[in-house]
Formats: sequence, structure tokens, C-alpha cells
Amino acid sequence: MIITLKKDAPKGEVEKLIGGIEAKGLSTNLIEGASYNVFGVVGDTTILDEKVIAANPVVDNVVRVAAPYKKANRVFHPADSVIHVGGIPVGGQEDVVVIGGPCSVETEEGLLEIAEGVRDAGGHMLRGGAYKPRTSPYAFQGQGSVGIQWMAEARQRYGLPIVSELMSVEKLEEFDQNVDLIQVGARNMQNFDLLKALGSIRKPVLLKRGLANTIEEWLMAAEYIMAGGNDNVILCERGIRTFEKYTRNTLDLSVVPIVKQKSHLPIIIDPSHATGDWRLVESMSLAAIAAGADGLIVEVHNNPECAWSDGSQSLKPDRFKTMIKKGRVIANVVGRGM
Amino acid sequence: MIITLKKDAPKGEVEKLIGGIEAKGLSTNLIEGASYNVFGVVGDTTILDEKVIAANPVVDNVVRVAAPYKKANRVFHPADSVIHVGGIPVGGQEDVVVIGGPCSVETEEGLLEIAEGVRDAGGHMLRGGAYKPRTSPYAFQGQGSVGIQWMAEARQRYGLPIVSELMSVEKLEEFDQNVDLIQVGARNMQNFDLLKALGSIRKPVLLKRGLANTIEEWLMAAEYIMAGGNDNVILCERGIRTFEKYTRNTLDLSVVPIVKQKSHLPIIIDPSHATGDWRLVESMSLAAIAAGADGLIVEVHNNPECAWSDGSQSLKPDRFKTMIKKGRVIANVVGRGM
Amino acid sequence: MIITLKKDAPKGEVEKLIGGIEAKGLSTNLIEGASYNVFGVVGDTTILDEKVIAANPVVDNVVRVAAPYKKANRVFHPADSVIHVGGIPVGGQEDVVVIGGPCSVETEEGLLEIAEGVRDAGGHMLRGGAYKPRTSPYAFQGQGSVGIQWMAEARQRYGLPIVSELMSVEKLEEFDQNVDLIQVGARNMQNFDLLKALGSIRKPVLLKRGLANTIEEWLMAAEYIMAGGNDNVILCERGIRTFEKYTRNTLDLSVVPIVKQKSHLPIIIDPSHATGDWRLVESMSLAAIAAGADGLIVEVHNNPECAWSDGSQSLKPDRFKTMIKKGRVIANVVGRGM
Amino acid sequence: MIITLKKDAPKGEVEKLIGGIEAKGLSTNLIEGASYNVFGVVGDTTILDEKVIAANPVVDNVVRVAAPYKKANRVFHPADSVIHVGGIPVGGQEDVVVIGGPCSVETEEGLLEIAEGVRDAGGHMLRGGAYKPRTSPYAFQGQGSVGIQWMAEARQRYGLPIVSELMSVEKLEEFDQNVDLIQVGARNMQNFDLLKALGSIRKPVLLKRGLANTIEEWLMAAEYIMAGGNDNVILCERGIRTFEKYTRNTLDLSVVPIVKQKSHLPIIIDPSHATGDWRLVESMSLAAIAAGADGLIVEVHNNPECAWSDGSQSLKPDRFKTMIKKGRVIANVVGRGM
Repeated sequence: MIITLKKDAPKGEVEKLIGGIEAKGLSTNLIEGASYNVFGVVGDTTILDEKVIAANPVVDNVVRVAAPYKKANRVFHPADSVIHVGGIPVGGQEDVVVIGGPCSVETEEGLLEIAEGVRDAGGHMLRGGAYKPRTSPYAFQGQGSVGIQWMAEARQRYGLPIVSELMSVEKLEEFDQNVDLIQVGARNMQNFDLLKALGSIRKPVLLKRGLANTIEEWLMAAEYIMAGGNDNVILCERGIRTFEKYTRNTLDLSVVPIVKQKSHLPIIIDPSHATGDWRLVESMSLAAIAAGADGLIVEVHNNPECAWSDGSQSLKPDRFKTMIKKGRVIANVVGRGM
Repeated sequence: MIITLKKDAPKGEVEKLIGGIEAKGLSTNLIEGASYNVFGVVGDTTILDEKVIAANPVVDNVVRVAAPYKKANRVFHPADSVIHVGGIPVGGQEDVVVIGGPCSVETEEGLLEIAEGVRDAGGHMLRGGAYKPRTSPYAFQGQGSVGIQWMAEARQRYGLPIVSELMSVEKLEEFDQNVDLIQVGARNMQNFDLLKALGSIRKPVLLKRGLANTIEEWLMAAEYIMAGGNDNVILCERGIRTFEKYTRNTLDLSVVPIVKQKSHLPIIIDPSHATGDWRLVESMSLAAIAAGADGLIVEVHNNPECAWSDGSQSLKPDRFKTMIKKGRVIANVVGRGM
Repeated sequence: MIITLKKDAPKGEVEKLIGGIEAKGLSTNLIEGASYNVFGVVGDTTILDEKVIAANPVVDNVVRVAAPYKKANRVFHPADSVIHVGGIPVGGQEDVVVIGGPCSVETEEGLLEIAEGVRDAGGHMLRGGAYKPRTSPYAFQGQGSVGIQWMAEARQRYGLPIVSELMSVEKLEEFDQNVDLIQVGARNMQNFDLLKALGSIRKPVLLKRGLANTIEEWLMAAEYIMAGGNDNVILCERGIRTFEKYTRNTLDLSVVPIVKQKSHLPIIIDPSHATGDWRLVESMSLAAIAAGADGLIVEVHNNPECAWSDGSQSLKPDRFKTMIKKGRVIANVVGRGM
Repeated sequence: MIITLKKDAPKGEVEKLIGGIEAKGLSTNLIEGASYNVFGVVGDTTILDEKVIAANPVVDNVVRVAAPYKKANRVFHPADSVIHVGGIPVGGQEDVVVIGGPCSVETEEGLLEIAEGVRDAGGHMLRGGAYKPRTSPYAFQGQGSVGIQWMAEARQRYGLPIVSELMSVEKLEEFDQNVDLIQVGARNMQNFDLLKALGSIRKPVLLKRGLANTIEEWLMAAEYIMAGGNDNVILCERGIRTFEKYTRNTLDLSVVPIVKQKSHLPIIIDPSHATGDWRLVESMSLAAIAAGADGLIVEVHNNPECAWSDGSQSLKPDRFKTMIKKGRVIANVVGRGM
């Protein structure tokens, strides 16, 4: 951590500040500059709160050199983490995984039909929302518990591990017992109570990036789960909010190589929510694989124009199949199976 | 709602779409254009999901004319809402209210001292976080229930209604019984389970705008609470996330007149979180009053450089007092007391 | 164009507005709604200025249905445009082109060495800045005319058409005579005088997207050049400005399929400026090809750590070669050569 | 400047890097950390290019401590600059100035009428665009030279200095001879050739902030003009681009106190372009004055619904007058006249 001091800072105040930091077991080192003095802090700086230091009137500004996350940090965990979801490995040099399924679970019959399509197309897991975070209180809010049961039924029939979104701590046990990969949605990425609860179980968590969260905040959210003892975190980019209006969100594919530099956790891409438009899903899926993603999560529906939510971003099963076929060749170019 | 159709859309498909909409009791009206056909939908369009319509292959795009919120909408509720918090009216032509206090409650003694400072400076309510949403799992997470008790103690001694942030549904009863104005933080603005729970009580809610949420999404979040039957919602702008790096967030003061056009709910401003820098708080507070805000929520601390969180954005009580004094004159210019 | 009127708008005022629009040869069509009246305008609405209409006190809001660009619009020009640059076709089903070279031309010898590396790696054109838009007035501003001459020398020796950035109208003739593809930088995307000047020549123009410009504004900038009679426009995405701090900009690859929907113009990707980090360039290049881009423009330097500008984003020639080799396989997957 | 080195960086490479920096007359200072080594660079670091240093493979990252601007920097020029425009002082403790007038000059008669309204309302200068940067090539592009003559005529009749936007270097002389305050528009904020040309004259320049430019880039643009010898720069905030859709741009009023911390230059606010909606102009004008702005530039038109551009954001003269009246009281609260 680098602390810049005002040139005219009273010596006594500076000494008090340095003393406080050294009392925590860190060491410091002063550099005198022309317009500023700067001192470096060496040691485990994650225990310092930079906002508290910045509040000191002698301080001009504070910069972290080391990232504030530890367990998610590649520096302290150089090998890729491989997370197993219902027996399927995700990350490292493992095959690129493809998760397909409807935005929300609507009917048992419809779900089973889609699940069959996902399996036949070569998909590896089934997604489906039973509890839905909807912008409007008047929109369909999901089937709830029965939806989870239909998902479990689909898993049994088609052998696909299931992925679903958890919205509240109350349902933790239901998800821990029934779901193979528990999704934290973008809007809950900084719902810290939910993250802490997920740290207390051992089921894998699919942590979506918040609409306007930095990569650092995203890794800190992973850290919350890992700090509780659950190391099974898979990251998922689903587009960020920008000024552009022709897409719902802006898919940020450069996060793939960056996350792989900064962290050992697997990262997958959701091209459906990122773009909001099924016509963009294939090209963004292929781009994601080329960028080195560990997997894809794609909305698939037999009848998108009748879907109860987000039909406009769903692929029909045959288009999903075509995408997987092309994707395999690209995965090979970047040294992966699929 | 205006639906644009592709010029070459098969007639049968278009009729099916129109039929489906009319079956819901809405009426439609077709306009033929040169490159597109357009049809307008008249009636209560909040029951339609535009994403489902947009998924139809004959549809080019969908635009809402009427806003998707009803209870929060000024069109259906032309008079200003005035919300009473512990006896203090907020909104309409009532006096501008000033809420002051520490970011987090640290010790009982410290809190009481600050509360006294807030009251003496002319503040109307006391803020203080007992449960803290912190980016890092290693940072101070708040005093919890005992913090709420200290807040209640401060209320009794200094006669200030208290404001505190609720982070999870589990603590709803604790807050409903003890807190006068329950804050929903920016990171939880779209924690829909929390919003629904707050709809079931009648205590006033202070709903902060999410870091990257549009005004429309913010009013939809208010709608969630109001749809449950709790009309006591006060909105709070606390800065949005932009590309600028010299401030923590960008305070968007134009929301004040816009919210007042679109909605009847009161709106207050949090200049402390918006800027992250106490040196900017006074000027942004005065600007907020000039813009027509119904109140301010400002961080106040006796000893910012020793605050356990966010000290860098806290005013000392004497500066808080100066701000209030200047603010009163500005309030008068815009026709308000303070 | 859809114009929403206030419900209580005086009839006379509405008739005046409609009359004015119809006097321009457009026809209108009124739909009465519950809270609003709406009317549609049919005909060539590019001649209307929506801001002028929106200023009318009876108008609540104005929405364009048809895009405001014509010459760049695929609706009016369904076939892909193929632009020829020094004999090399760009766009449509032609091979993916790769442009390589230094950010700025530094010395004649250095440039020739890099040009040889670009050619040997399989690159098709040479890029190099002679006039440099630098954020700081104290930074290296480019070699100017002599740099253009060195570029021309490199073209002659290695048979690579040359690409360079034009910053001012004064140098138009120099560029028209010497450069094969004239680049408009992101910062000048809305320098309308420069765009108009480029409309008066017939040399191909590489139009970079502005840091914070929407796709619509970008296509309108292309329209400026095309309105002058120069149809030879190639679009180039180079990252947009967002809140994320781990990359210089956020590369928006979804623009590739969107631009191909909306326009017939070719689009290429600049992964070097988008990311600002050479370690991300290969993966973003491959992703761009997978997304369907018509080409790449990549910074290549023999000695990035000694480059006079933007060394941190330059590939060494051998890495550039590896990228091209992998890229070819991906191009084949999406039906292209390279 | 603080340079973070990879822990495993080869000693020889580090020494070469340090040697190169010290050869430029700067001194360095190494701090060894647990996971990184860091060294500080002391001296005039504006001569270093951080991107070149960051390109060095031993470097992890580079942070500037001192701002990269000098002439615009308050550290080196502690006293407020007061810029005189046609005899009217702007900045420091001088009165808040109000500039009013149409977006574009349309007819001589109309302009004179508006000018009279501006003067009668208490405005101090007249704005009016003769050359217009329009997003569409098909929109009205301005009256050109004759517009400048009409402005000069209005100045003579009503005694108001005139402000107009320069779009190209070719017209520099025309503006230097006829215009009192030469505006650089947001889209040209980084048109470096234009900035350099303005550095060669001595007329005051009104430098608008780019739509997506940081405060640092804005001050660097001012530095371009000042580096050429023209110290007469007035900054103008006109809203930045964000995700919000209910306003055209987001007015960032916190720039006022920040610019005053970082720089000695005056700063004024343009609430008309920031919001794009005349109904928001008064409240944002008053907020700007409360925030400490040195002036306002407001669109005024007699007949906004017939304005040839941007009518929707123009005030009628009587509303402009009301705003000035209220503004005066607020100016007094913050210690200024108006």
C-alpha cells in the first residue's frame, strides 16, 4: 500500500499515523518527493482499511499495490482450481462446459422437452430459474419449490446436473439438497448476507458479475464465499451496464484473460443475458470460447415467442446444437475439448 | 406501448400476435409505414411483458409509452406524498429534513456524543449503521443488535428519530420494532425478497438508488414495496457509477426534478456516499437543496480519522452546523423551510 | 417516428404540430390512449429533427422507429459492401484481413524492421502513426510528414498497403496521395469538419468508434463521410469507456453482429487499444474473428519496452505470427479465409 | 510516480529500468514488499510516459502520484485565475457570470430579439452558434460567417460580449477577431490540433468537458492550450454520458469543488446541454451556483418550439430572468455576487 502525504503535513501527525500502522505488524518506508511525501506499507495490507487512512487530514491519497482478496488470488494459489459440479469438472484444462435451459421453469412438460433438447445437442448441464428476480412486481415471479422439483426430475431423466438461482437465505437448505450448482444473480452479487450463507455450505456456487461491478469487487464477492470455507466458486460474466442502447448490456470478454491472470477460479460466459438478443448469442458464444472461457450458460427454449420471460434471448435447440458443433473446433484451437 | 413490425412479417403471425394482446383486454391500432409497420397498444400495458413480445420473430422492437410503475407514478397520484418519520413530515412543501450521524455505530459513548452534536447543529434525525454491507469480508461488519439498542438509547436522550440499514429479511422484526426509517442500501435496491418483506410492514423505508440503476428501475423497486401495501417510501440518491475517478461516485442531482415529475414520492440526497470526500459534502448539500431535494442524509463523526469505516466522507459537527445554516437560506429561495 | 402527446394538450396546438409535419410531405396517424395520445409519422423521417418536435409543449416524448442513417443502412443497401484497400478486399465474404505495425512511427530503420516482421507473420497491411493524438502536450507528438514517407518506403519494400491516422483537414492532400487507408481516431469520430473533408475524397477511411459513442452515432459519423460521396468506409471498434479499471477500455465485441445487422459496412477490431495490455491481445483477436469481424488491427513492435508510445499494448512479431496461425482455423469455423 | 515490480523480476532488468529513469535526472527509491517490490520516482515525473514504463516486462503496474498537468495545476499556481472576457472578470471571488442565448443563430432579427431579452433579464454575455456540430449530416449546420456578424451586431447594440463555438482551425482568425470567448465543444475537447491552434492566440477559450472525459483529461486539454502560451482558459461542465436514459446526459456538479481543488481555472456550468430539457434548467442552475460555480451558460430562445436546434432545452427570457433573480440570493449564501 502506497500512502501519499501532503508536503506540509505536521510531523507529529505523520508519526502518529505511521505508528498506528506499524503497531499492526506492518513495516513502512518513507520517500520524500518534490511536491509530496510518499510512504510504502509492507506486509499483509488486507487488514488495513484504505478509507480510514484516507480520512486522515495529512493524507493526500492511498493506493493498494496488492489486491485486497487472498483466497481468490492467483498469487497465493498459482494452480487453476477445478470445480466439480455433479461429477463434471469445470476449469483448468478440462473441457469447456455448456449449460443450457430456459430462463424460467414454466411447466413440467415444457421443461422436460427442453432438457431433452439440451442433452441431444451436446449440452452438459441444465439451467432453469424457479425463483425469478423480476424488475416489475407485476411480472411472473417463478414457480418456486415445484420448479426445483421439476428440475430434479429432468436431471434424473436426462442425466444433466442442474443449475438454478438462489435469491434468499431462507431457501438455502432447499438448494443445498436439490441443486448441483447454486447461482447468485447479478443483482445479488453484493448481497453479503447471501454470500456469507453460501460460505457455510460446500455446494458449488455460480457467482454472476453485477451489472456495474468491477472485477475487483467481483473477486471480493467470491472471497466472501471462500472466507466462509466454500472454495467451490465459478465466476460468470453476463454483461455490464454501459451507455450503449443497441444491446441490453455490454458483454466484456476481456474479463476472461484478466480473471485468469488475477485468480485461479473458473470463469464462464452468459451470452444470452449479456446481449438480450438470440441473434447475437451464437457469435458471442464462439467468441467466448476463443477468448478462453471455461464454459457457457445459454438460454434454450423450444418456443421462445411463448416463453414467460426473456424469450427474446433464447435459442431454439437446433441453433444451440449448431453453436456447440462450431464451438468444439474453436475450443481445440485454444487447447481445450468441449 | 408501440410495437414495430418487420415489413415482411407474415400476415398470419401478425394477426396471432395482435389477437393475443387483444385477448387481454387491450386494444390495438395499426399504422403502415414505408419500411416498417407499427401498431399501438392502448389500455393498461403494465400487464404486458415487453421482452416476451420482442421475442416474436415478426417484431422489430417494442417501446413503452406509459411508465411501467403505477403506485409510484405521479400520473395516477398527482399530489405529493408526505411521509411521516417518527412524527417528522418529509416531502411536499414540508421543511427540508437533515439526517446526520456516523456511517457505522462503533461504541455507545461515541454514538451519544455524535447524536448530541447532530441535535445541537439542528439535525432532525440520527443515522447509524449497525449491520454494514462491506466490500471485504475482512472489514468491520457492524455491531449488530447492540448497535440498534444504542441507536434507540440515543433517540430517547436527544429526541431524534433513527435511521438504519436493514440487510436481510431475518432482521425485519427487529427493525420494524426499533427503527423509525428503515434504509435499503444501494447494493440491495434490487434484492426483491427484501423489498417484498418491506411491503408487508408499514414503517417508512428509505430506498437508496443502486449504483448503476436507472431512475425507472429505482421507481420499480419502490413499486415492489408499495405493491405489498407499504406506501411509505422515501427515495435517496447517493451517486451513480461512472468512468470518472476523482470522485467515488457521480452525484446525479438532476434526479431531483425528474423524480418530482415522474413520481409523488419524496427524494433526499446523500452527498457523503456520493462523493466519498468530506471536502465536497457542504457544496453538494447546498446544491441538493437548491435543486429542490426534500432532505439530506449526511455522515457526521466527531473524529473522522478514527472512524471504523468511511471516515474520509464524514463531517465534524461544527462543519455540519455551518452547512445547515447556509442551507436554510437556500431552502427559502426555493420556497421551503429547513 | 412515434410522437406521444400529453392527454390534456390543446387541440389547436396539436393540429398546428401535425400540420407542420404533413406540410413536409409526411403522413400522420393518431392513436388515442388512456393516459396519452400517440401519433405515428410515416415517410422519410430523417428530415425531421426530433429535438425540435420534443420542444413543443404539447409533446411528452418522441421515439424514432427508423434509424436516422440512410447510406450506411442495410435496409436500403442489403448487400455487404466490400472496400478495396490498395488492392486488398475488406468485408463481405472476403478473407479476414490483419493489419499490424507500431503505434507510432519512430525511426525509418525500426519501421522497416517491424514491417518485415508483419509481412513474414502473414499480415496484410502496415499500420503506423505519423501524427499522434496524445493526451499530454508534453508527450511525443509523432514524426509528421517524414513518418508518412517512411511508411510509403515500407509499403514499397514489403508490398503492404499502409494505414495511418489523419488528425487535421490541412493534411488531407498528403494523406490522400500517400496513405492507402486513412484512419479517423476515436477522439475525432465526431470532428465533423474532418468527416466532411473525407467525404470529398475517394480513399478508404478507417473510422474508429469514439470512446463513449453509441453504435448509432458511429453509423451517423460514417453517414457524414458517405453523404459527401465517399462510400469507402470501414468501421473499427477499439473499446469503449466504462467503470472497469483493470482494462484501459472495455472491448465491445457484440458490435460485430449488430453492425452487420444494421449496416452493410465492414467492421474490424483493434484489440490493442481496447485492452491496453499485450497479454490480452491474442485472446481478444481470436474472439473477434470468432465473432465474425472482417479484420484486425494490432500493434506490433520489435521492442515494446522501448517503444515511444503504447509499448505496453504491442505484440512482438513472433506472438503476432502465432495469433494469425490460430486465427486462420477460427476464421474457417465461421466460414472465412484469413 | 510509484512503479510496482514483479517479485521475480531479474535484477539486471530492474537495474536497467532504474538506470534509464535516473539518467533523466530523476531519483528513485526502492521498497521491498512481501509479494511485490515497489520503487518511487522523485522529481519532475511529467517527462515520463507511464505507458512506456508499464510495457517493461518486469513492471506490474505504474501509478502517478503527482498530476500530469502543470500550468493548470493549483499546486504550482495557488491563486485563483481570473479571466477577462470583453471586460467582464470570470473566476476567483468575482461575480457569478450568466451567459444566455440561442443554441444556434438563426436569423438576424431573431438573434437581436433574444439578445435584448438576455440583457434585460440581467445576463452578462450572449451565446450563439454559427458553426454547429450536428450528429446528422442532414441537420441544419449553422449560418457560418454571417452568423458571427449578426452576433457582433448584437454585441454592439446590447453591450454583451459574445461567445461562439469554433470547430476548425481554418476559422481561427475569424474567431480571434470577432468573438470574445471562443468555445471548444465537448466533441472537440481532444481535437489536439484545434487546442494547439488556440494556444497560439490570446483570446479566452471556453473549454467544454467531453462527454466521456475524466477531469484529468479535461485539465490536460486545458494544459494543451496553456502550453502554447494562452492562459485564458475557462472550463465548462455540460454533463457526462452514463447509463441513465431519462436525461440526455448526467450533470456532474461535484466537478465544481474538485476542479477548484486541483486547478486555479474558473469553471462554469451548462445546465441546458447537460439535461436536454428546459424543465430541469432552473433547478440545475441554482444547484450549480450553490455548488460554487463561477458562471452559467444557458440556452435562451423566444420561441423554443420553433428553434432550429435544441429547442427542447431552451428557456424563454422570462424564465431566464426568474432564474437569475433566485440565483443572486444563492450566490450571496456562498459569498459571491451575481
